[in-house]
Amino acid sequence: MASAEYRELLERVRELSTLEQVAGILTWDERTYMQPGSAPDRAKHNAAISGIMHERLASKEMGRLIRSLKKQELSADGAVILRAVERKWRIASSIPGDLVKEVSRTQSLATNAWVKARAESRFELLGPWLEKMIGLKLEVAEHAGYEDRPYDALLDEFEPYAKSRDIDAVFARLKHKLIPLAARILDEPGFDALVPKGKYPVAAQRGFVAGLITDMGFNMDRGRIDVSAHPFTSGACRDVRITVRYDEADPSYAVFPAMHEAGHALYEQGFPEKYYGTPLAEAVSMSIHESQSRLWENMVGRSRPFWSFYYPKFRQAFPAFKKMPAASFYRHVNAVRRSHIRTDADEVTYNLHIMLRYDVERALFDGELKVSEMPSYWNELFEKYLGIPVPDDARGCLQDIHWAAGSFGYFPTYALGNIYAAQLWDAAKRQVPDLDERIGAGDLNALLAWLRRNVHRHGKRYDASGLIKKATGEGLNEDHFIGYLKEKYGALYGISL
Amino acid sequence: MASAEYRELLERVRELSTLEQVAGILTWDERTYMQPGSAPDRAKHNAAISGIMHERLASKEMGRLIRSLKKQELSADGAVILRAVERKWRIASSIPGDLVKEVSRTQSLATNAWVKARAESRFELLGPWLEKMIGLKLEVAEHAGYEDRPYDALLDEFEPYAKSRDIDAVFARLKHKLIPLAARILDEPGFDALVPKGKYPVAAQRGFVAGLITDMGFNMDRGRIDVSAHPFTSGACRDVRITVRYDEADPSYAVFPAMHEAGHALYEQGFPEKYYGTPLAEAVSMSIHESQSRLWENMVGRSRPFWSFYYPKFRQAFPAFKKMPAASFYRHVNAVRRSHIRTDADEVTYNLHIMLRYDVERALFDGELKVSEMPSYWNELFEKYLGIPVPDDARGCLQDIHWAAGSFGYFPTYALGNIYAAQLWDAAKRQVPDLDERIGAGDLNALLAWLRRNVHRHGKRYDASGLIKKATGEGLNEDHFIGYLKEKYGALYGISL
Repeated sequence: MASAEYRELLERVRELSTLEQVAGILTWDERTYMQPGSAPDRAKHNAAISGIMHERLASKEMGRLIRSLKKQELSADGAVILRAVERKWRIASSIPGDLVKEVSRTQSLATNAWVKARAESRFELLGPWLEKMIGLKLEVAEHAGYEDRPYDALLDEFEPYAKSRDIDAVFARLKHKLIPLAARILDEPGFDALVPKGKYPVAAQRGFVAGLITDMGFNMDRGRIDVSAHPFTSGACRDVRITVRYDEADPSYAVFPAMHEAGHALYEQGFPEKYYGTPLAEAVSMSIHESQSRLWENMVGRSRPFWSFYYPKFRQAFPAFKKMPAASFYRHVNAVRRSHIRTDADEVTYNLHIMLRYDVERALFDGELKVSEMPSYWNELFEKYLGIPVPDDARGCLQDIHWAAGSFGYFPTYALGNIYAAQLWDAAKRQVPDLDERIGAGDLNALLAWLRRNVHRHGKRYDASGLIKKATGEGLNEDHFIGYLKEKYGALYGISL
Repeated sequence: MASAEYRELLERVRELSTLEQVAGILTWDERTYMQPGSAPDRAKHNAAISGIMHERLASKEMGRLIRSLKKQELSADGAVILRAVERKWRIASSIPGDLVKEVSRTQSLATNAWVKARAESRFELLGPWLEKMIGLKLEVAEHAGYEDRPYDALLDEFEPYAKSRDIDAVFARLKHKLIPLAARILDEPGFDALVPKGKYPVAAQRGFVAGLITDMGFNMDRGRIDVSAHPFTSGACRDVRITVRYDEADPSYAVFPAMHEAGHALYEQGFPEKYYGTPLAEAVSMSIHESQSRLWENMVGRSRPFWSFYYPKFRQAFPAFKKMPAASFYRHVNAVRRSHIRTDADEVTYNLHIMLRYDVERALFDGELKVSEMPSYWNELFEKYLGIPVPDDARGCLQDIHWAAGSFGYFPTYALGNIYAAQLWDAAKRQVPDLDERIGAGDLNALLAWLRRNVHRHGKRYDASGLIKKATGEGLNEDHFIGYLKEKYGALYGISL
């Protein structure tokens, strides 16, 4: 029987979760329906909600409860919840309120500066803000604490319990294998897979992707699909809301962001009912979240079995595609190109974009790189990894909002997500031997059931590394990702990789 | 120079306002885009936000600040803010938390029961819940305090400082004049003003009403217009969001809810910039709010000058209306009918529906009427006021959600709003002698400017009665409303009223 203190902790945890859900709805609204003139008011709403959450999380009562419960015998569930709450409480109560506010204020000003800097491709407009932000984030790291490097404290915010020394090792191996592999693929002649010319109405595209994500298992009775400039997933508990962007000249364009965001959404909607409102119904980390989105987007959505079932449906929705053979369409959705912009990158080159960013931010926080040297360091690495020069900073180190927003330590989770996705995909195929056939027959539920059982139902019970070991039998291993690329692109180009 | 305590009060007031704005966005979302399956989660969000608001409003610190500031010399603005906050604080801190929760729980259960009772027209399904709710509300009234009757404490929630004895007097006079006047109009033969048959696309209707409310002065850069089953206005500060409902068979249908809700919205968007977040940027009361919506909907939107400008535009948007002469259209939008449903009622009979509800709820709270006798009392009054029998309780005392939701004391504010609207309209016409001509020339700004100056800019500086005296030179007076009806409908029917 749970103690009164444990019940009080649960009540506080649930209230914090509820406030986080409210913030999720506000974020969704801000990026979909809120009119631009209301942005200053919305900033106040966000500040009020996060201020109240911080006040309640870092409160003395919370500290008292946590210290007392640590001495008590808790159930397995209780121990998971306590560990997750203690982690958040420790971080929240270690960082002074004034520093939190200063970071938040600097984020607003720096992202404004970034918008202008990127538009005009002038790094000097952003540089001083990045210096300030890095200084503040180093302070945050000192308060939060770390073992090896200040950077680890920042990484920990997005990827709990991860260490940069482990990421260094896996990225070094991945880089070593991926740079020549990508170069080999990129050196092959490209395909001329032209999309039939036409204007494909958004309503028909929305119908197709809504049907598809419903087939995936997305619960449309609770969640939504809308439009925004940059696709994202937000919401509250099982009220998960995803957004996509449509290209009226190419209806295949929206399919991949839709499957990506639906992959995130299936995770959020897939925790055990009774745990919602607690860390047992929360994602492990950003990398595990990303493994879910990338698995559906790439391993499923860009596969032959998937399109063998869905291309006929796609052609029904967009009859002009009857002119485009299935093989050409498959090549079209798997085109590999040298490109400057991360968000446009294909699955072969994407991790190179990420590892470059990781190298840059690690060097900045280790004091090995000055902010003023960042553009030239970026450009040098870019040519080394991708094989083409960077034409300007707008298409170089100014392209992403993350650093201006103070999100150092976020980028590596994208690549970790890709690696984990390949590991999970291999494990699922081993355990469900006819998985490809099922997907080819339009049955996406076999994969979802496997993910529910091996990933979703655990919530935060394990950390990322523990979860992957349990689900796949081994820890972080880039070989599955490399093997996946070799097999797929070898077959596609008819070359041996 | 403001004292530190006053600054602290302002900070607390602004935080409460911010939370109320967040609740406004959640309400809007709930009634527009949220999927039905997420209703239970949303109930938790609402409970968390209102719980935090109550905790902060009824806190000891708030009481301490208020008591201390009452002894200090404040600016005129400061005195208004203090009075408004003290009022809310006194009510919040006088009602026990358990009672608040019990009312809230009963509201949910009673409104569920009401949905079923109305659908099946079975009063006995709702009766016991109404009895329970009335009991709880009587308890609330005892805690909140009142001068004459418990009912006044409930009325005060929607119409601060109003007393039922004043409403009794004005409703008695209004009833005495309106019942025979309405009967006289209703006895005239109706008009056969047939709307041209066709399917009028929602997109075109939306375009027309969006243009119209922009002409009225609605700030679309901050607010929105969407669709919901029951039109409403919600939002956050100047991010005011209105909804309408479209009838694809009659594009004039949406014009009136749009103008009604835009009338509410212009009030919310029209407070002085610097006061947002304080009671000086809040509506006086529900009746004053309703005066704004009804003035735009009826005095402007159902007037000849308005349509002399807008009917040509309306016909451009819906060319089939070229078959319908302007005079027929004007009669169509001013049709007066005996009807059972309040929300369908025209401006002549509407107040009779309201006064009936007021009579019923007053009798319930004065202990003169048992809940079980309510249907027969309703039916008896209905035939007396409207001249037709009530066919069943679904179209009788079960039609509105208000009582099941515990909103006793809300109904009279609708009729007060209509009376105030007519008073403001007369005052505006006196002070802007060419107002009709301006509206006929498509200039809606003259009226808005008058309302900004005489109503909006004051926020909660005066109570309803004080504001109306200041704006019109006299207190609540139903004669303006009666005079407005006589003049308009006398001319329309060519009879002397």
